[in-house]
Amino acid sequence: MTQMIDKRPDPEALSRIKDILGPKGWVDDADDLAPWLVDSRGVYHGRCLGMARPGSVEEVSQVLAVAYDAGIEIVPQGGNTGRVGGATPDDTGHQLLINMGRMNKVRDIDAANYTMTVEAGCILQDIQRAAENADRLFPLSLGAEGSCQIGGNLASNAGGINVLRYGNARDLVLGLEVVLPDGRIWTGLRRLRKDNTGYDLKHLFLGSEGTLGIITAAVLKLFPLPKERAAALVALDSLDSAVTLLEKARTASADALMSFELMPGFSLDWAEKHVEGAKQPFETTYDWTVLMEIGGTKMDGSAGVALEGLLEEAFEAGQVVDAILPQSEEQRAQLWFLREAIVEAQNREGAQIKHDVAVPVSLVPDFIRQANAAAIALMPGIRPYPFGHVGDGNIHYNLSQPVDMPVETFFAEQEAIHRAVHDVALSMNGSISAEHGIGRTKRDELLRCKSDVELDTMRALKNLFDPKGLMNPGKTIPAPR
Amino acid sequence: MTQMIDKRPDPEALSRIKDILGPKGWVDDADDLAPWLVDSRGVYHGRCLGMARPGSVEEVSQVLAVAYDAGIEIVPQGGNTGRVGGATPDDTGHQLLINMGRMNKVRDIDAANYTMTVEAGCILQDIQRAAENADRLFPLSLGAEGSCQIGGNLASNAGGINVLRYGNARDLVLGLEVVLPDGRIWTGLRRLRKDNTGYDLKHLFLGSEGTLGIITAAVLKLFPLPKERAAALVALDSLDSAVTLLEKARTASADALMSFELMPGFSLDWAEKHVEGAKQPFETTYDWTVLMEIGGTKMDGSAGVALEGLLEEAFEAGQVVDAILPQSEEQRAQLWFLREAIVEAQNREGAQIKHDVAVPVSLVPDFIRQANAAAIALMPGIRPYPFGHVGDGNIHYNLSQPVDMPVETFFAEQEAIHRAVHDVALSMNGSISAEHGIGRTKRDELLRCKSDVELDTMRALKNLFDPKGLMNPGKTIPAPR
Repeated sequence: MTQMIDKRPDPEALSRIKDILGPKGWVDDADDLAPWLVDSRGVYHGRCLGMARPGSVEEVSQVLAVAYDAGIEIVPQGGNTGRVGGATPDDTGHQLLINMGRMNKVRDIDAANYTMTVEAGCILQDIQRAAENADRLFPLSLGAEGSCQIGGNLASNAGGINVLRYGNARDLVLGLEVVLPDGRIWTGLRRLRKDNTGYDLKHLFLGSEGTLGIITAAVLKLFPLPKERAAALVALDSLDSAVTLLEKARTASADALMSFELMPGFSLDWAEKHVEGAKQPFETTYDWTVLMEIGGTKMDGSAGVALEGLLEEAFEAGQVVDAILPQSEEQRAQLWFLREAIVEAQNREGAQIKHDVAVPVSLVPDFIRQANAAAIALMPGIRPYPFGHVGDGNIHYNLSQPVDMPVETFFAEQEAIHRAVHDVALSMNGSISAEHGIGRTKRDELLRCKSDVELDTMRALKNLFDPKGLMNPGKTIPAPR
Repeated sequence: MTQMIDKRPDPEALSRIKDILGPKGWVDDADDLAPWLVDSRGVYHGRCLGMARPGSVEEVSQVLAVAYDAGIEIVPQGGNTGRVGGATPDDTGHQLLINMGRMNKVRDIDAANYTMTVEAGCILQDIQRAAENADRLFPLSLGAEGSCQIGGNLASNAGGINVLRYGNARDLVLGLEVVLPDGRIWTGLRRLRKDNTGYDLKHLFLGSEGTLGIITAAVLKLFPLPKERAAALVALDSLDSAVTLLEKARTASADALMSFELMPGFSLDWAEKHVEGAKQPFETTYDWTVLMEIGGTKMDGSAGVALEGLLEEAFEAGQVVDAILPQSEEQRAQLWFLREAIVEAQNREGAQIKHDVAVPVSLVPDFIRQANAAAIALMPGIRPYPFGHVGDGNIHYNLSQPVDMPVETFFAEQEAIHRAVHDVALSMNGSISAEHGIGRTKRDELLRCKSDVELDTMRALKNLFDPKGLMNPGKTIPAPR
């Protein structure tokens, strides 16, 4: 059981925390705090005691030890780019924000071992570049990579566009350094690919959204850097061909298929309509398109040859009906710009109800058909806009409002639509949060998709690591039914 | 704290357990039991109340529920091929052996999703073949694959020869079904590549060696089946070139390098001397050799071309001084036979002291040099025989007895030598058990290589899942210092 805590902060404890951090490590000016008190979707607004910006693992440890004794609640934060409100404090003003941005050193790159050791506050893009400078690839790649921090990526087990080939964030970690809720430091920064010496603690913290401790550093896996990339935007004869083509592409590319992203054909029209610089590249609006990319480790065009061979076969089989093959790096970048633009385009087209589901890859077409039917039955005229990482079975199943429907009328049905879409995913033993996590947004919905055994086990783990319930309270773990 | 338990079994509980299992599911004949009461190295001999052979997850659940209430200790067992005594009962005769061999169904193969769902008692080789029949690869591969069971592989996070490319056993799992110590069933058989809905429970059970529950089924990841394999046995100019060559091979093969196995040159002589059918393939005894293999997904010889190109470069750079390139599948199989034969050869050459360490790949040469120096300082004439999965930094650092030394004299120094070798690994932040696990053999040694925070956390997790201490007691978790 979580103990009852007097949430008013002890002024003496707070002053000890400020002393530990020094002036560089403490922010309490309202203007400076403002951007960190609202989540990236603008849904949640919070208050806080102040924002700690620790400069070392020792400082994190000391701050947590004082906070633990004093019963001060903690909200860990990285780049504040999350989609589920996991890094926003509540509105009591009694929580302490701990922002990891100052711990942003790359501690080590070991190219021969294909690893690097980084601090939690490193920006994802900086890590990608540091790896590239050592002729290595760190494959985690997602929309927010210019501002998200690796600590947040790991705490939320981020996904993105290369999961198909390289796995989720958790699969890219060999070791962790974590400060536990009571301030103890677990130094698990091993650079080993094999280590069977007891329970695997790192996987408990990876994806726990800051509810079990604070990740302060990690040993990341690196890979050979692709020397060339071959991409194609293809139009399919049917949704089912997405699965067939994916299957073939994995085989034909020697499993070097890095991305396989589904986009409805009209989303390319919307991109052209709403986003500066985006253009529908086909002469007609196809039902379904896929942006796929293969990596090669030689600069001899062999990745392009493999891709073209694969597409020829798919043309002959009638599964692919049209294709754009970029002839330069610039054209390839343009296709990826289009892939990002369809997200922005939907925002401009009106209000949306969003989902981040996963089902087995083989069931993606069925999922989309059934979810479309369920949503349209609830709201005729609603415009399904499913896109995303079909290579991992992860569909961002978004819905745009019917044309001319008042926004309030649309959002009045949000819960019913969430439930209907999630029901389809759950009927396929799918996930209601493939890559965004639970945070505050999906906490209660979790009650519908986990067994009592799983919920009880999660609660017991939370209570074991954080018996006072101080770490990111109100996130991830649902209150009992 | 673990409660005190009267270990004498309650006859009524035992009779209820027999009723649940029926005659097919119960073995208590001494001859039938005998092979299951000794570990694969012949080091530990135990006794038991009887061996349960449950036929379904429900039976496992019911048996554990009764055992939990009655305080009966449980030893889970798969193919009994482990190297650390993790599946052998103690000598009290009060423990119940649960052998999973009857739960051996492949429940599902979903080729389009690249997954299969299997029961714990499936033999690893049968799983490999079932995947192959669906034109897929299940890449876990190790010496005991003809008799080890996947449940044991997962409970011990098995490694083997393809970890470099595909990861350890835990990396090949998407979902689990587990019976908890009190008999509750966690059904986590999701076939999803992305699922961020709370704590990742599966990684707790993977590698926990049956101390937290019994894995009864799993969803496994499959991969495109290599259509050809190109192997080479190469002789190196120096130990350091192993690391350089590995680095190049990963890049040059588009990361399709599947295996990279180090063998001291004289181990090939020992194989020829001791093992029927094995032959030293080089005309001279080189210091160091590596068996490497690249997989290709086309039957067009491109894997061989990639490998030859790579070796040519390494020849020119002077890192590779000789090479055997098999010209047929039979010759390739012969090289892998040799790789297995060097293990048997060492057994025939006299007594050995064995280790299963891992260090960062970049430190493997240093590790071998330092461990050699430490061992020879303790025992002049001792013959180091380091071999194994250098691609993962995992060296089976074995030592053969000095010629003509009495076996007792040799083994009298075993603990000191273990300690010295492990000290070298630990000084490099390495692992004392890369792939074999802890079991009974390395339980106490764990005290030397884990921090208090890590040991305390492991004990707390053990106590959370198994408060009565009934699951595989005396294994994995060391008693307090």
